[in-house]
Amino acid sequence: MQRYFLEEAYQPNEPFKLSGEAFHHVVRVMSMTPKDQVYLVFKDQVSIRAEITEIQDNVVYLVEVEKEKGQKELPNAITIASGYPKGDKLDWIVQKGTELGAHAFIGFPATNSIVKWDRKKREKRQERLQKIAQEAAEQSHRQMAPQIELLETQKSFFDRLSSYDVIVIAYEESAKQGELANLAKVFKELTVGKRVLAVFGPEGGFTPEEIAVFIEKNGILCGLGPRILRAETAPLYLLSAASYQWELNH
Amino acid sequence: MQRYFLEEAYQPNEPFKLSGEAFHHVVRVMSMTPKDQVYLVFKDQVSIRAEITEIQDNVVYLVEVEKEKGQKELPNAITIASGYPKGDKLDWIVQKGTELGAHAFIGFPATNSIVKWDRKKREKRQERLQKIAQEAAEQSHRQMAPQIELLETQKSFFDRLSSYDVIVIAYEESAKQGELANLAKVFKELTVGKRVLAVFGPEGGFTPEEIAVFIEKNGILCGLGPRILRAETAPLYLLSAASYQWELNH
Repeated sequence: MQRYFLEEAYQPNEPFKLSGEAFHHVVRVMSMTPKDQVYLVFKDQVSIRAEITEIQDNVVYLVEVEKEKGQKELPNAITIASGYPKGDKLDWIVQKGTELGAHAFIGFPATNSIVKWDRKKREKRQERLQKIAQEAAEQSHRQMAPQIELLETQKSFFDRLSSYDVIVIAYEESAKQGELANLAKVFKELTVGKRVLAVFGPEGGFTPEEIAVFIEKNGILCGLGPRILRAETAPLYLLSAASYQWELNH
Repeated sequence: MQRYFLEEAYQPNEPFKLSGEAFHHVVRVMSMTPKDQVYLVFKDQVSIRAEITEIQDNVVYLVEVEKEKGQKELPNAITIASGYPKGDKLDWIVQKGTELGAHAFIGFPATNSIVKWDRKKREKRQERLQKIAQEAAEQSHRQMAPQIELLETQKSFFDRLSSYDVIVIAYEESAKQGELANLAKVFKELTVGKRVLAVFGPEGGFTPEEIAVFIEKNGILCGLGPRILRAETAPLYLLSAASYQWELNH
């Protein structure tokens, strides 16, 4: 069943209304008519099954059938931060990461990032990624669509670090040195409702200077197993492991 | 450092020799010369760092420097079986799944698979996927390259089921009904050295008849968390969770 994400918090004030792009999708793309049902997902992660009662010129009217059962979001909000990787890898970090439950995505210019985007290119890219996240959130039945932010400077990323409860750094050297316990320790000790930032390097990895900044900000260096994962695979490993630990393994 | 996979088991009979494609890669692509080092990975998962001593017309000669330290392979061999998905999704199931430690891959025509490949197409595809697996195994520092098999019939896949110690079936309906414990239970109870088959449906999922066959063969239906994962994302979730449970969480 189609899912539509609304910009407002849930309030039981019927009828609910869809306009703009969602209207277009319901009426023109899906050719829905009264009695058809969709999911409405509100800003506060409440989601309901709703039935169309009336379609007017630019508005679809709906009433609530029932609240959607079950928690679809990870119990801790994981933001995936990627040092800009090559090519269109961010596209699929965002698509797959959204399916796997990421709360938000940040791109930033790491020292070894090769990509250089001017402001215009960056804004265009952000818009495109936001659309990918929205579609993946609908398809995977999320109760929210992750926000995307592409930062201009490394400094602006470093300035963000203090606004998270826990910071984990995926660090290849940790794995090489046989460090294989930190991530499980962090995941197991975390109580619910925490804001987690998971940071991933570009293809060339992080420099010692970047690692020093992360450590100063209480970042925890974590190996992700003994195999070398590509820049676009590592975030998916971390999100899958989080889901396994928090949603399956209790 | 470059890795080369050899078709023979390790034996300490120096000098080691590289010929054929590996020779071409060492000499023509990488322009290596005596004293340069590479990894040699043998059929029995022994891997050594080796130094080039001499390059002749069609053979590179090498001596052992030291055995590679550490176990890079998952303690249980997981074979990923995918009901043929659409488009080139198998390409990236194989690429990412190899990075994440899969032991082997099987493709088979599930009832809801749309793809129809004749024998010639299937052989060509298998060759291409084998190459993808080989490259991903080198890049991720594996101690083996997974084998790929694309099966012609559903029956030939069903006939395979009895040759594994444990069969897990990724089943969307399990997740919808709130089943979120089976996979963790299987992973935690498994002792090392087991052969695990993990089975994934095509885009349309499995039919009740297919599920009945899997259950008859002792397949365990497992949900992979509360979000709906695409056909190409689910295998990566399972492999990441296995690595987390067996390699990080002990």
